[in-house]
Formats: sequence, C-alpha cells, structure tokens
Amino acid sequence: MIIVGELINASRKAIGEAIKAQDTDYIQKVAKDEFEAGANYIDVNAGIFVGKEPEYLRWLVKTVQEVVDCPCCIDSPDPKAIEEALSVHKGVAMINSISLEKARYDALIPVIAGTDLKVVALCMSDEGMPETMDDRLRIADKLINGLVQNNVPLDHIYVDPLVQPISTNSTFAVEFINSVEAIMTRFKGVHTMCGLSNISYGLPERKFMNHAFAIMAIGKGLDGLIINPLDKMMMASLITAETLAGRDDYCVKYLKAYRNKQFEI
Amino acid sequence: MIIVGELINASRKAIGEAIKAQDTDYIQKVAKDEFEAGANYIDVNAGIFVGKEPEYLRWLVKTVQEVVDCPCCIDSPDPKAIEEALSVHKGVAMINSISLEKARYDALIPVIAGTDLKVVALCMSDEGMPETMDDRLRIADKLINGLVQNNVPLDHIYVDPLVQPISTNSTFAVEFINSVEAIMTRFKGVHTMCGLSNISYGLPERKFMNHAFAIMAIGKGLDGLIINPLDKMMMASLITAETLAGRDDYCVKYLKAYRNKQFEI
Repeated sequence: MIIVGELINASRKAIGEAIKAQDTDYIQKVAKDEFEAGANYIDVNAGIFVGKEPEYLRWLVKTVQEVVDCPCCIDSPDPKAIEEALSVHKGVAMINSISLEKARYDALIPVIAGTDLKVVALCMSDEGMPETMDDRLRIADKLINGLVQNNVPLDHIYVDPLVQPISTNSTFAVEFINSVEAIMTRFKGVHTMCGLSNISYGLPERKFMNHAFAIMAIGKGLDGLIINPLDKMMMASLITAETLAGRDDYCVKYLKAYRNKQFEI
Repeated sequence: MIIVGELINASRKAIGEAIKAQDTDYIQKVAKDEFEAGANYIDVNAGIFVGKEPEYLRWLVKTVQEVVDCPCCIDSPDPKAIEEALSVHKGVAMINSISLEKARYDALIPVIAGTDLKVVALCMSDEGMPETMDDRLRIADKLINGLVQNNVPLDHIYVDPLVQPISTNSTFAVEFINSVEAIMTRFKGVHTMCGLSNISYGLPERKFMNHAFAIMAIGKGLDGLIINPLDKMMMASLITAETLAGRDDYCVKYLKAYRNKQFEI
C-alpha cells in the first residue's frame, strides 16, 4: 500500500503561512514527521498562490527532499508548476492529478507521456462528479486507456474514484468501494488511491467514520491513500486492514507495528 | 443487520456456574444487558453439561425470555436439547447451527424442515474445515439447497462461512470475506453471519483486529454477527459500517448513535 502524506498543503493555514514566509524549518519538520510516520510520498501543494505556484512548488520539493529520502506527490493541475517542481525533484515523482476534464487532460498528458512518473488519475470529467460505479468506470476506462496509449504503464497509474459524502446519499460509500473492486478487477495491475475525509462531510465523529471507510475500501482492494500519517488510529487501522487484506505474510508487519507500540493510542 | 449476543454460553466460567446454580438473577442481568446494548437474538448455550443440556437449555430460554422481549438463538447440535428449548420459546427462534457434517445435518433437518425457524448454516463438512472461498461455496451450495428443498426459505438462512485465524494463513481473511460476497451474490436473499474472534487467534491487539475485520466483512455484504454487544467499540464500528454499507438512509441510525453517546468510548 502507498501512503501519501497530505499535510504540506497550502490550503492549511500554517502551511500557507510557512510557504509565504519561506519557513524551511517548519516545512522540513512536517515532512520529516510524515516520513517517519510511514508516508511513502510527501504531497506538496501551493495551489492558493496564483502566479507564484511554480516557484513555490519548486521550493517545496527542494525543501522537503533536503531532509527526507522520499519522492514527492506533486499536487497541481498546472503543467508549468509541475514542470518547475520536477526540475528539482530527485527520484520518481507522483503527479496529483490528471482527470478526464478536457483542459486538464490535454495540459497534463504531454507532461506525463512516455515518462516513468506515477500519476493519480481522478475520476472526474466535464460532465461533473461521478455518483455511481458505472459513472466512475466509464471515466476510468477512458483515462486508463488514454494513459496507456501514451506509454504510461498500468502499474504507474493510481485511479482515484472520488469519494463523495455519505450524508448526501446513502449509497455513496458502496458505489465508491464497488468502483475500487471493479477497476482493479478490470485493469489488472492498476492501482487505486483516494483521500478519505469527504466521506464523513457534514457528520459528527468524522475520524471514526474515515477509519472505518479506509478499512472497508482496503477490503475491496484499495492500495493507495492520501492521509495524515500522524493520525495514529488511522495508521493502526491501515496496518490491520493490510494484514486482513492478505498483504502481510506471517503477520510480520502487524507484529512489528505491535512491538513498535503503534496500537497504543 | 442481525446481532446475536454471545455472552450466555456455558463455556464462559461465570455463566457455567450460574447455570449449574440455576442463578436466575445473573442470567437475566446478562440477557437484559445484551438486549439493551442492541442484541436482536440472545444466544443460549449449555453445551458443557452432558446429559443435562436439554433441561438447562429449556431453563435458559425461559429465564431469558421472562425479562427480554427478544427471541433466542439456540446454540446446540443436539435435536433433543433444541426441541426442549423450543417447547418453551416465545416467538421465532434461531437455531445455531446446522452444518454439512452428515450426523449433524441428518439430526437437525427434521427439526427445521417446514418450520419458520431461522437457522445458522455453518460451512463445515465431514471433510474438515474449509480454507478457500471455493471450499466454502461448495459446502454452502449443498447446505442452502438442502434447506430450501426442506421448505426453509432463503431469507431464514444465515450462512456462516467459518472464520479461521489469519495467523495461520495470510489469505484466510480474504477467502472469508470473498465467500461472504460470493454467497450473497449467488443466493439472492440469503444472509451471512459469523463470530469474529477466531480471525485474531494467536495475535496481540485482538479486539482491534476483530473490529476491523467486522467492518471489512460488512463492506462485502455480511449482515449478521455473533458478538459481545457490550463491547462498545465493536457496536460503534458496526453502526458506522452499516451506514457506509448503504443500510442507513439519511444516516438516521448513525446520528441517533451519536446522540446516544455511543461513540464516546
């Protein structure tokens, strides 16, 4: 399972201020914390800074990779910002994200085609947000085929079926997790990935629901998550879910997490 | 989702002693606690008392139903004990359980055939414990068809695919949850049901794993559980999982549980 640490996002107040002030220490502390907590990629986002996004994104990548030996997940729809960030990136980055929206798709395909970049492929089109599994499969089908035709191997693609709030429709969690299962069954070798917090939008006890939803989605095959890796209950849930999902021979990772006191929350 | 409260089981020391002493107060307190915590059936088991099981099981049913308006899940493979228990049972009982083991099957079919009893159908045969999904489907197929031919409607059958410890084989949780999905897809209208604690046998942090496993199995369609309903974290997990599984229109049950402080654990 791939864990993308979501904390370095300019829409979070402290991060936005740190980026503006070019506060290297603060950004590096967050990056180290995420990495040590188990992140495989550090998401970097400077989306709120219109005009300065390329410069800030490059700075974020450089700042993060000075202290952690870990690739970044470059979180922008702007090819210029992504290219600036890639110009200083060490190792193989992940791009977050392409979608089937025409402007975004056309802008990002040239950046990704024929590279070894990993890419998050968001199930969104110009027709709006998908609601059902069938909506998602139609979009995923076109996105995956488009990427493969542009020499992006299935193994580099992380389809994000797009989580929507259960408070607006009681079927939204089921439609999502069934999409995960259907996408991974139909396209052997592709990955799925998502953020979780939308599921519990508008409800109380959001963390509890987010954890349960992660476990359920992993049971259906989900193998990537964009989360706060400092959320200890979430990490304990993921480790347990991975073991249950058959991805932990002899429960080695589960027992290691136990010895490391990761269940003492 | 059907919740069977598992606590009134003679193999638990305090219960065994209470049965022997005919301690009505103690048994009634446990039954009330389970019912108030959300049990839909109260499991009653007097299996350790060879020779006295029929008498004790009848006493348990009578004792329990004096204080809770709730059917019992009669937990015995012995048709004599079951018939004694049924002779005093009010409402429609559940029988726990028939299996494909020939002696057990032949003994219980006459008790169940043509009645409106609910029945747990355990995926066990004389060839031993099932390991894979295919093993389970072969047994479930014969059990379900046998019951249906004996005029037990699908809606009265709760197939228990039989949980086995993940510590002995890393695929055992996946094979189980995939069985749940396959059984409920193949036999529309049938239910699935299980106890959970075997999954974590031999591992630390068992409760945590049991909760995660319940959530994952509900995501695959499981709609019955034999649990300790006084385990508050388990009940909160189940309520959340039910909401995520699309069984809670407008999140009414989730919000009610929140107002009842069921997430304050």
